[in-house]
Amino acid sequence: MTDKTDQDSLEQSIETIKLALVEGRIQTATALLSDLHPADQAEVFDELSEEQKAILLPTLDLPSAADLLEELEDEDVLTILEGLSAERLADVLDEMEPDAAADVLGDLPSQQASEVLAQMEDAAEVLPLLGYPDETAGGLMTTWYIAVRPQNTVSQAVDFLRTVSPDTRVPYYIYVLDRNKKLVGVVGFRDLVIADSNTRIEEIYKSEIIFVTADTDQEEAARVMSRYSLSALPVVDTQQRMVVVITHDDIVDVLEDEATEDIYRLANVSDSDLEPDSPIFAQIKGRLPWMYLNTITALFASWVVTHFESLIANVAILAAFQSIVAGLGGNSGSQNIALMVRALALGKSDTRTTLRALFRQITVGLLQGLAVGLVVGIGIGVWRDNFHLGLILGLAMVGNMLIAAIVGTLVPFGLKAIGQDPAIASTVLVTAVTDSFGFFLFLSLATLFLPYLD
Amino acid sequence: MTDKTDQDSLEQSIETIKLALVEGRIQTATALLSDLHPADQAEVFDELSEEQKAILLPTLDLPSAADLLEELEDEDVLTILEGLSAERLADVLDEMEPDAAADVLGDLPSQQASEVLAQMEDAAEVLPLLGYPDETAGGLMTTWYIAVRPQNTVSQAVDFLRTVSPDTRVPYYIYVLDRNKKLVGVVGFRDLVIADSNTRIEEIYKSEIIFVTADTDQEEAARVMSRYSLSALPVVDTQQRMVVVITHDDIVDVLEDEATEDIYRLANVSDSDLEPDSPIFAQIKGRLPWMYLNTITALFASWVVTHFESLIANVAILAAFQSIVAGLGGNSGSQNIALMVRALALGKSDTRTTLRALFRQITVGLLQGLAVGLVVGIGIGVWRDNFHLGLILGLAMVGNMLIAAIVGTLVPFGLKAIGQDPAIASTVLVTAVTDSFGFFLFLSLATLFLPYLD
Repeated sequence: MTDKTDQDSLEQSIETIKLALVEGRIQTATALLSDLHPADQAEVFDELSEEQKAILLPTLDLPSAADLLEELEDEDVLTILEGLSAERLADVLDEMEPDAAADVLGDLPSQQASEVLAQMEDAAEVLPLLGYPDETAGGLMTTWYIAVRPQNTVSQAVDFLRTVSPDTRVPYYIYVLDRNKKLVGVVGFRDLVIADSNTRIEEIYKSEIIFVTADTDQEEAARVMSRYSLSALPVVDTQQRMVVVITHDDIVDVLEDEATEDIYRLANVSDSDLEPDSPIFAQIKGRLPWMYLNTITALFASWVVTHFESLIANVAILAAFQSIVAGLGGNSGSQNIALMVRALALGKSDTRTTLRALFRQITVGLLQGLAVGLVVGIGIGVWRDNFHLGLILGLAMVGNMLIAAIVGTLVPFGLKAIGQDPAIASTVLVTAVTDSFGFFLFLSLATLFLPYLD
Repeated sequence: MTDKTDQDSLEQSIETIKLALVEGRIQTATALLSDLHPADQAEVFDELSEEQKAILLPTLDLPSAADLLEELEDEDVLTILEGLSAERLADVLDEMEPDAAADVLGDLPSQQASEVLAQMEDAAEVLPLLGYPDETAGGLMTTWYIAVRPQNTVSQAVDFLRTVSPDTRVPYYIYVLDRNKKLVGVVGFRDLVIADSNTRIEEIYKSEIIFVTADTDQEEAARVMSRYSLSALPVVDTQQRMVVVITHDDIVDVLEDEATEDIYRLANVSDSDLEPDSPIFAQIKGRLPWMYLNTITALFASWVVTHFESLIANVAILAAFQSIVAGLGGNSGSQNIALMVRALALGKSDTRTTLRALFRQITVGLLQGLAVGLVVGIGIGVWRDNFHLGLILGLAMVGNMLIAAIVGTLVPFGLKAIGQDPAIASTVLVTAVTDSFGFFLFLSLATLFLPYLD
């Protein structure tokens, strides 16, 4: 299914379905689409025009339509659902997993959402999920979990499992709750399979349970699941009462989204849904504000240089080399930022390790400054036949990389400390310092050494 | 276990264990350590000195030691295992999961690895895993899966499950193989629980199986598991014969590692194991070569500027503003790179979408150039009371952001097309272009407009 050949066959299916739609053979298109896995159906949908989607979706039966909608991006879902009546929409949402249905409802205008909820059969499953912001563990949860009492027997638990719709993608554990709904234990399906049917659940459950609370950040919840290799993670309230369960497939999405967000933010792109071929307006909206912020810091660096106008008029060659100091300082700072942002994101950094990190980063900055400064200093000294120029260039590089190490380490740490995402503004702030300070240091040194530069 | 309070209590345990070690109360330290989850034990170990680790590890029983080793980083494991005899090492590896044991063996000198393998009881489980490079699906696999024949009954499968050690962290599915070991179906534990015990496996298994081959890239395997929400993914050979199984917890590590790798590579750090407080030599090794490469491109950009030395001597203020053109072009290029690298990593980009992406990126580059160029051009025009200067600044920014869009989109795509990781060299290559071309364009325009600049 995932060999090269199979990716090709998916491409073929897409072409055949598009052709069928163009030629008006709707039934053929529906039949072909229904044969695919929902994740592949979503890929087909990505390739269709809005009009084609609107034709094809209503031809699917409700469960298929619901499966497909779960796989599509949030915005696409809204566009597709726009045309549906509250009643039909309620039917579709009933078929979806509760967390996906809650997502859709959360994106609808509140008036429309209440109308749809009122018509839903499974409103009770979805309601508890509506209160949590998208980025908390609560925003990830599914209410579909299986709970038993400690006094139940294995065969009672198995009977209960049989009554739950076999389509339900329940997690891989059964949770044991006491009479107050407090979570007291967990039983893996595997333990259930191999246990004797008259065994009581309390004899086989594991009482060391790993859980999070509903307000836990989704990235933190993902880290907990990864750390303890869990395929499902219960979410509890302040009284350790079971609320819902997060499953491993949510976590993969969270991790990929968080990685995209970090990479984008480090590159000054603020909308993590952007793709290279996203609509132009969305791209401008996610990118231009950061360009303007960078413009301000770049203008500040230029303003620093304007103070040395007469120096540069005298020794114009300085203009050629000032950028080396600023640019390589910025490169070194980016390295520092990447290390810190990742350590903070993966929970590998705290105050104690940051002190050690700061010390090491300063040492590395100094050594890199010396290593690069020496080569560039001597190189430029030989090339321009002016070793004083080489000397100030080398010195400025050492100084700027030292500063880069300090701000590149402390800025991400400081942003995290004040509750901000370190990825979001570190690059702009650190580059502002390495540019301005780099120019200032190099041109100030040049002023000092002016008699030797001509 | 993961509340704030519990993280605090882990910190407390660490302190208590350290204190016990310092005071020579080894037994107390061992008892405290044994009570923790292996993932938490690993955190304790991170905080100990080499000497303390060497004291503590042999006091743990074999299964605990093995669990702990699975949680530690590769290098730490090697350091800790260095002192062990081949016999003792074989005992420990026997207790570890086959893929973790194969990892350790792969890191040992081949002579030592063969000696250890010869003494291992479970060598047969580990051997098939040794042939695969770390970064392929084969490098992730565990041989611990449960296979049945289609003709088996549910009760036979359950009996078989009972014979497998309950400690074994087997995946959540049972795989159905025909007599040639060809993978023909899959049964979830849940289906097994609810099925009647006399049912034949062939009546309940799902024959639409998603699998990968052993040479599949680990990132691709992770994507497949994420895409189809699988908690375990079978790996087959060219005859679709079952080889091994990848589980969801491997995938989380893969995704985090790949994200770290991408973030680091975009920031010119080539060793994805680096952390902010890594040893200084390791940091220099992972960072300095990239600094030297950046030095070369920075020197090239300087060399471009040297051709305009007499122009700058005439109009020194140009030196203050050339960096704005180069810098903001670089910023815009970084945005392009981030979008492309992420789209390529997540498999969202192919030749067709790249063409559309290129068109959109060029449009966005032009619009950003106009938006920023207009503001900067007018601003500088007013500030320096020289609208010709503002004009050439604005024009150069438009031109440079256009170039940034083209190279920022095509360089990552081109690197991928020739089989390279687009993250690894895109930043250097694109910055080289935006710096050099930015200086060249701005200073050339200044030469053209020279009569109006004084």
